[in-house]
Amino acid sequence: MTKVQARTASGFNEYSPSEQIEFNRLMDIIRGVYEKYGFAPLDTPVLELSEVLLAKGGGETEQQVYRFTRGSNDLTMRYDLTVPLARYVAEHEPTLVFPFRRYQIGKVYRAERAQAGRFREFYQCDIDVIGSLSAVIDAEFPAIINEIFSQFGFGEFTVRINDRRVLNGFFEGIGLASSSRDVLRIIDKMEKISRDELVDELRKAGLDDQQVDSVLRFTSITGSNDAVISQLRELEISSEQLDEGIAKLEALIRALRVMEVPESRFKVDLKIARGLDYYTGTVYETVLDDYPEVGSVCSGGRYDDLASYYTDTSLPGVGISIGLSRLFYKLREAGVIVPVSQSPAGLVVMPIDEAQIASSVAIAATLRKAGIATMLYTEPDKVNKKMKYADRMGFDFVVLVGARELESGNVSVRNMRTRTSAVIPVAELTGYVSA
Amino acid sequence: MTKVQARTASGFNEYSPSEQIEFNRLMDIIRGVYEKYGFAPLDTPVLELSEVLLAKGGGETEQQVYRFTRGSNDLTMRYDLTVPLARYVAEHEPTLVFPFRRYQIGKVYRAERAQAGRFREFYQCDIDVIGSLSAVIDAEFPAIINEIFSQFGFGEFTVRINDRRVLNGFFEGIGLASSSRDVLRIIDKMEKISRDELVDELRKAGLDDQQVDSVLRFTSITGSNDAVISQLRELEISSEQLDEGIAKLEALIRALRVMEVPESRFKVDLKIARGLDYYTGTVYETVLDDYPEVGSVCSGGRYDDLASYYTDTSLPGVGISIGLSRLFYKLREAGVIVPVSQSPAGLVVMPIDEAQIASSVAIAATLRKAGIATMLYTEPDKVNKKMKYADRMGFDFVVLVGARELESGNVSVRNMRTRTSAVIPVAELTGYVSA
Repeated sequence: MTKVQARTASGFNEYSPSEQIEFNRLMDIIRGVYEKYGFAPLDTPVLELSEVLLAKGGGETEQQVYRFTRGSNDLTMRYDLTVPLARYVAEHEPTLVFPFRRYQIGKVYRAERAQAGRFREFYQCDIDVIGSLSAVIDAEFPAIINEIFSQFGFGEFTVRINDRRVLNGFFEGIGLASSSRDVLRIIDKMEKISRDELVDELRKAGLDDQQVDSVLRFTSITGSNDAVISQLRELEISSEQLDEGIAKLEALIRALRVMEVPESRFKVDLKIARGLDYYTGTVYETVLDDYPEVGSVCSGGRYDDLASYYTDTSLPGVGISIGLSRLFYKLREAGVIVPVSQSPAGLVVMPIDEAQIASSVAIAATLRKAGIATMLYTEPDKVNKKMKYADRMGFDFVVLVGARELESGNVSVRNMRTRTSAVIPVAELTGYVSA
Repeated sequence: MTKVQARTASGFNEYSPSEQIEFNRLMDIIRGVYEKYGFAPLDTPVLELSEVLLAKGGGETEQQVYRFTRGSNDLTMRYDLTVPLARYVAEHEPTLVFPFRRYQIGKVYRAERAQAGRFREFYQCDIDVIGSLSAVIDAEFPAIINEIFSQFGFGEFTVRINDRRVLNGFFEGIGLASSSRDVLRIIDKMEKISRDELVDELRKAGLDDQQVDSVLRFTSITGSNDAVISQLRELEISSEQLDEGIAKLEALIRALRVMEVPESRFKVDLKIARGLDYYTGTVYETVLDDYPEVGSVCSGGRYDDLASYYTDTSLPGVGISIGLSRLFYKLREAGVIVPVSQSPAGLVVMPIDEAQIASSVAIAATLRKAGIATMLYTEPDKVNKKMKYADRMGFDFVVLVGARELESGNVSVRNMRTRTSAVIPVAELTGYVSA
């Protein structure tokens, strides 16, 4: 028989068992925290009607989708989880209970040019609250990020927070409402260019000396969260929008303190804008303090209108997304994520020879009944080969069931981390391995 | 702005939040048991190269796949989880540790004619052990099914077990080895036709009187597991394959007893064949005793060769698959699955008015820190509307934070199941709602 070479398509990633165990551990942390904050699961189809999924239209997106026809259906694979959410909420609006909190963890598809760390199939982990204008809700997102990244254990991290109303109000107040998009674009790259280049670009965008000066003053506001707020107030720029933005930021900071999110982990940063069109209120970005090169690992914000291309109903919301596949890739590359075990079971039960198979089966059954994930290894191999298997798999314990020990009701337990062995009564095994 | 009608493509299912919570509960049970038995997670891409995914070729399958080209890639969406497993094992064989145990829970895609309960996107939940010939391993599958369906709580169920070597050996022994496929096909439908029709069909297939008689005797073997085994022995048909099959079935039964799987839940049934080509050893089917119309909810068996179209390496294995989407659909239709809650949080914290928002945020934070999934509701609604929200959401408890109670360090807790309220000290709230 002619063989086909077993391989995946370029840009499509899959993990080894040990990597997948680690990836799932992170995904479980995310899901656990999302659920603890009352977000309900949603699982929309991967394939949707192109007419619906691409209703918003335009942009790079449309060039990057996997789209095809099948029979009379023009179908597209989802490229994010936001458009499916918009479609879902618009479709089921009469039966949903608002504010509607949902999380969705799922794969999305983009036919991007394949390159290291860029995948054509990758996970997004989204939460959104739709239909709430309560400012307290905006504070739940940094609190959620705080819990998730604390549990991840990749060191310290900072949630950078801003409010689009602060930005827009500021521009409005200095007479730049109409060119705010251009100025935002310039501010966005200010960390990469010199001060002189910045001034030059702002002048080219048509700003007069006073406006340039205001922008420089505004973007140089730093310090503690309280310091940033008071410097914002000291600008004495007259703009209702700016005042509202400052008030919302203050409320957010207050709520985060009530939630006991460590002050070092959230930081008002006036340079954060998160794109130009979608967000209208609070915006978030998250950076790992020790791995800034990874970029933002969790971003989002507040928007006025989730689904205007499906419905006239106004659907304001707030949401964030964790790009888990990319985060995993980067931290795996950096040697921060180091998978250890090939099995979700921490131990393996092995008969020394065939005569102890039944006893081994019984011992494994007892351990599993006690809720202990257990592997049973009954291959007719020599003990040497069995131990090599256990080593490669990365078990914590090997329970060796031998004739001699069994006679006195014992088994031999090898701790694979400490490389020590002990003879343990079968009746005490469950306690021993779960200690 | 012209609106696009928000809708999904025909045959693509999605759940309401309360259904999804219930679906996930079942999926978590499956995953939990799979992991307890030491199966490692695998998550292969949804899109694969058509040349690879369709290497096996032939059959209905190829007509039903979603296949398209993008750039120079001819891609197909996976239609099951077995072919991706075969590809994965063949591709990574040198680095995998055998026996290789993996589970995969994921969506698969088939462009079938859309009809009630038939989906074009649905979940399969598969486990396989690759590279083990140990008969004990075959017993782990009914033990796993036993644990999963016990936890599901859909009443009693039976794992029907057979061994293809018993069937093949029997046919060989009565001189029907060459026409065994035809006879199997007839046996397969014997529950739907009369005895006379059966005899008629067997004669048409070329069986002589003695052979028809043997087949009738064979297929009428019933009774306890021990009774079936002894009747099989009493057939006194000379076939090594039959003898091996009987011995394997006996070993399987013995192991299941050692594992303390209730005898009522596994039953040797000589009529089970599970298709004609793939399986070569043990075969399994599972039926819900109270809902036989659902058909088999978990099937599988032992095969000699997982990946012959990719590799010359012999890769024998055993596996089962749970068709969770179909099972969920059927039991939801039958009123067995009745979703209750719209939120993974069992309780909601609500300020009576704005002045108690900060206290409510603090109380919710304390509950969440204690690991209690908590919803925070801070919309500026009247209490009536708030309670209506809580009712629709299906919470167990509503924690109402009011000025008067707060003054003395209390909150009002309404139990939504018993429709009673109690005033509880804030400091005792965590204990109260987790009791």
